[in-house]
Amino acid sequence: MPFPLPIRVVQFGLGPIGLGTVRLSLTKAPLVNFVGAIDIDPAKAGHDLAELIDLDEPTDVVVSADAERVLADANADVVLHTTGSFLPDVADQLEVCLRAGAHVISSAEELSFPFDRHTDLALRLDKTAKEAGCVLLGTGVNPGFAMDTLALAATVPCAHVQAIHVERVVDAGQRREPLQRKVGAGMTEDAFRRRATTGTFGHIGLVESLRMLAFGLGWTPDSVFEQLNPVLSDRDVTTPFLTVREGEVAGIHQRAKGVFGGKTAITLDLKMYVGAVDARDSVVVDGDPPIDLVVRGGIFGDTATCALLVNMAPLVMDAKPGLRTMIDLPVPRAFGTGTL
Amino acid sequence: MPFPLPIRVVQFGLGPIGLGTVRLSLTKAPLVNFVGAIDIDPAKAGHDLAELIDLDEPTDVVVSADAERVLADANADVVLHTTGSFLPDVADQLEVCLRAGAHVISSAEELSFPFDRHTDLALRLDKTAKEAGCVLLGTGVNPGFAMDTLALAATVPCAHVQAIHVERVVDAGQRREPLQRKVGAGMTEDAFRRRATTGTFGHIGLVESLRMLAFGLGWTPDSVFEQLNPVLSDRDVTTPFLTVREGEVAGIHQRAKGVFGGKTAITLDLKMYVGAVDARDSVVVDGDPPIDLVVRGGIFGDTATCALLVNMAPLVMDAKPGLRTMIDLPVPRAFGTGTL
Repeated sequence: MPFPLPIRVVQFGLGPIGLGTVRLSLTKAPLVNFVGAIDIDPAKAGHDLAELIDLDEPTDVVVSADAERVLADANADVVLHTTGSFLPDVADQLEVCLRAGAHVISSAEELSFPFDRHTDLALRLDKTAKEAGCVLLGTGVNPGFAMDTLALAATVPCAHVQAIHVERVVDAGQRREPLQRKVGAGMTEDAFRRRATTGTFGHIGLVESLRMLAFGLGWTPDSVFEQLNPVLSDRDVTTPFLTVREGEVAGIHQRAKGVFGGKTAITLDLKMYVGAVDARDSVVVDGDPPIDLVVRGGIFGDTATCALLVNMAPLVMDAKPGLRTMIDLPVPRAFGTGTL
Repeated sequence: MPFPLPIRVVQFGLGPIGLGTVRLSLTKAPLVNFVGAIDIDPAKAGHDLAELIDLDEPTDVVVSADAERVLADANADVVLHTTGSFLPDVADQLEVCLRAGAHVISSAEELSFPFDRHTDLALRLDKTAKEAGCVLLGTGVNPGFAMDTLALAATVPCAHVQAIHVERVVDAGQRREPLQRKVGAGMTEDAFRRRATTGTFGHIGLVESLRMLAFGLGWTPDSVFEQLNPVLSDRDVTTPFLTVREGEVAGIHQRAKGVFGGKTAITLDLKMYVGAVDARDSVVVDGDPPIDLVVRGGIFGDTATCALLVNMAPLVMDAKPGLRTMIDLPVPRAFGTGTL
């Protein structure tokens, strides 16, 4: 590979996904050298990382709330960033990392394809990244892979494509607590619908996936619609974190559609709810030849998002500086794994 | 896109796949401008391309056997090359195209990942391509997508990968005549086994797919094995081109396996035979999380290979000069299609 190994990695954000990427990064030694950890939570700062992930041996990486200081000391190649979903909330953090000369791979859903929703922010981040000679990438299992990158790749055997339908069904009961809360599990339908109007609820990034897919195909949408509805539970379901009673909200059914030349040609359909059966990821391309692709059982989200963040590190290090997306970079693949 | 449209395309090789890419390229106007056609068959030279693809209107592109002349006149951006499977047979043709300053996308199976089987040729072609400032790519549905690129992409959600099993089942009865002949349909078992020893029979490129997948994962094989057996027909089957009687060869069952650290961690299993049922492409990743991906009905090969060749043109035009592979280039996708 055309870059020096090991890759020096700093983790920014130590919630469930961040701690997952820390654990995973540590397993990638000696290809990955874990050199720093940032979290703004004062309860975490000052502790050796080992305490947060239940390791017996200290890692000699002490969590700090001072991002600039950690970055200045760590000489990181790549920052794995997992602090929030919304680009305006995290843009300053991303800039700090880029200015310190590090590539950044972030789980911020709105960063996966930010050019429409946050045009000015995207331009600013692209400029900062280019000035720093660094790459900025937003990724994760969704947005980032299941409903956009994989769906786009599924179109390449097609001479012609009329429409694409992507579906993801996730049993939220198997997922981390914040995700169960985010899909509204255990709420009443009324409370769900009130909260849905805030626009910060449900899955973030569905429209970003749709726009990334459209852009990859060279299609310019006339319009893009998104719809969020609750899935009501038909029985009592208990997870390690909460209980959903019959008739309460089990999760979300979220849909996005893109209209092109007057007809709906891309639909994304996402169900994430506690107790979901028939979990799967599917991509149906109405094309020549038609493509009917399914990942049976679906792609398990929490593990996969951590994996995406870590696995993209080598590809990011070898890419052209700037704000990139998953479909700009080479075919994604697992890194530092298995029979090495 | 960062290159001037339309893309000026020349077709080199006018067999069934070549004529398919011509037809497809013509549908991509105005994004593609079809500017030249080369075939060494004197029966084809001198004819307007329209005669070969049953168009009523002339295309004003006259087939020529003189590649250098066509290339000098056409000022092509991209040559689509479909003359043969084996790199030593086609390397001089590829060099002529590169020296004329054109990017080349070839269906030559051995070009898909030529670094092991044809190390010297690969180095020579890479050098020529770099000197010319052009990209050379070998692709198609298989090798090129179904059993390598798609399989590699399926690993990116995985934190760890222990093994990968890729399977492709194709009903050869639905495919073009040369493919039916190539899989031995209608031969006796004895004749099949004699011909199998020549090493130029059956599917070409299975080991290339395996090595591309391994390289993408950063895995270095201890050894790679390939095995070719006939599938014998359990009934009489008639295709538009031939008849297979019960007990005769219906096609091939070809397997490749890669051994890493003493254990078999990649297996590719390909069945192509007349009368195959349960056609499919599947990728099973023994990883964390596990991935169980299937393209139901499989990816229809002839159309898909033409599509791959044409669809990769924009990505090739924007790539770094040299001999590239599918996994070096950005996530592949359909081009110039659908609702534009």
